[in-house]
Amino acid sequence: MPDGSHIHETPVIGIIGFGAFGQLIARCLSPHFRMCAYDPAPGLQPMADRYGVALAGLERVACCPVVVLAVPVGRLEAVVAAVAPHLRPGALVLDVGSVKMAPAEIMARGLPGHVDIVATHPLFGPQSARDGISGLKIALCPVRGRRCRRLAAFLRGRLGLDVVMTTPEDHDREAATVQGLTHLIAKVLSQMEPLPARMTTRSFDLLVAAVAMVRDDAPEVFEAIERANPYSPHVRRRFFALASALDAELAGDPPRARSPSKAEA
Amino acid sequence: MPDGSHIHETPVIGIIGFGAFGQLIARCLSPHFRMCAYDPAPGLQPMADRYGVALAGLERVACCPVVVLAVPVGRLEAVVAAVAPHLRPGALVLDVGSVKMAPAEIMARGLPGHVDIVATHPLFGPQSARDGISGLKIALCPVRGRRCRRLAAFLRGRLGLDVVMTTPEDHDREAATVQGLTHLIAKVLSQMEPLPARMTTRSFDLLVAAVAMVRDDAPEVFEAIERANPYSPHVRRRFFALASALDAELAGDPPRARSPSKAEA
Repeated sequence: MPDGSHIHETPVIGIIGFGAFGQLIARCLSPHFRMCAYDPAPGLQPMADRYGVALAGLERVACCPVVVLAVPVGRLEAVVAAVAPHLRPGALVLDVGSVKMAPAEIMARGLPGHVDIVATHPLFGPQSARDGISGLKIALCPVRGRRCRRLAAFLRGRLGLDVVMTTPEDHDREAATVQGLTHLIAKVLSQMEPLPARMTTRSFDLLVAAVAMVRDDAPEVFEAIERANPYSPHVRRRFFALASALDAELAGDPPRARSPSKAEA
Repeated sequence: MPDGSHIHETPVIGIIGFGAFGQLIARCLSPHFRMCAYDPAPGLQPMADRYGVALAGLERVACCPVVVLAVPVGRLEAVVAAVAPHLRPGALVLDVGSVKMAPAEIMARGLPGHVDIVATHPLFGPQSARDGISGLKIALCPVRGRRCRRLAAFLRGRLGLDVVMTTPEDHDREAATVQGLTHLIAKVLSQMEPLPARMTTRSFDLLVAAVAMVRDDAPEVFEAIERANPYSPHVRRRFFALASALDAELAGDPPRARSPSKAEA
């Protein structure tokens, strides 16, 4: 990845998908790179202007030396197919999805052999990055080529990110718990709103803050976390089973003193 | 409540029950008052020495001008009966339980007419108060007498607490959600440990911090919150029902486009 001193007229970073996350990328990278972005949605010019991003056609954006696919996981396969013919040899292609096994496989299969690929998962969103991204985490999974270490050095050194090098499998296993639980709990709690605001404990305040950070995430994020991560059903099953057991326990009598009776076996 | 300038030889505050919460009270009040405490458990002398608290018999502690009942809600009735005969006319009696309807009623019924009563709920515990209590919340419910306002002024002015004046009913209604949800979620998540620590989001970190704050609370706290609060079953039912609905939704097909079919009615 070129550093800031090599800025020239041609955009360095091409962003495919200029939604909430594409815009966050533009905000974080605007001090460092010239950028262009492709998104068929209308009304994006003001946001593009704000970060000095040139809106352009898919073909032109796909020609950049670095191409970031900032689209929902469910649309990645179609986007890879559309972008693939236009990528230049030696380009670096990144995705930013909340799961990594499926996207890594889709990119490895659908992108031409002459590009390098790193699957990434920035472990933050527009809410948690509101006050900057320094100190936040990003997971990197090298898929093809040797650019991952240099990318990691940039993300650490220039953006202050905490880089976690991992594999798609390890990522998805851990993310199934981290994001699966957060989003499940957020989904349930946001359905219980309005939540009390007066007689709150510090612990409850933290819970509400956790929910606030993900409650406005795009529905596609929840879909990806709960459906596209192969480890999610297991985590969910376990959470709901433990919740049910607690429910049953609390619905019954208070726990009695231990006794070796058969009924407890 | 006397202020710090009136310190004399006789202890001003008597604490009945010198467990985790009684000790927290001693820690917070030691700069302001002479204190004594009663607790039949062994091994409490070092902690009493640490906060300058004189351990004494129930009768002597109950003679103090201010008596704090720092015992589990489930033991309050017996403690009230034991303390009642020894209370001096004009004494102020406080409890500190996590629910307020049952304790307010128990104290109003069991304590002599010549003492004032304020039911309190410090909305914090040993974990959340680790770095001090300034800015934390306490709920006060006047039960008998006119000392509540002066007590509130002391708690605000000297301890920096955020005082919420309320009724036992309003308290329990709100606490059923605040504490009920926090402890339910903490209970389930602590059963899923070890939780990931590497690839975490900020939102997940907040969730884990929320759990850490209550996970080591005495089991009696969980019992009081889930069983002694009459509004808890409703909150729990709602949480578990919403969780089940989400579970069913995620186990099924992805949500389809809206259609006015009967099956959705």
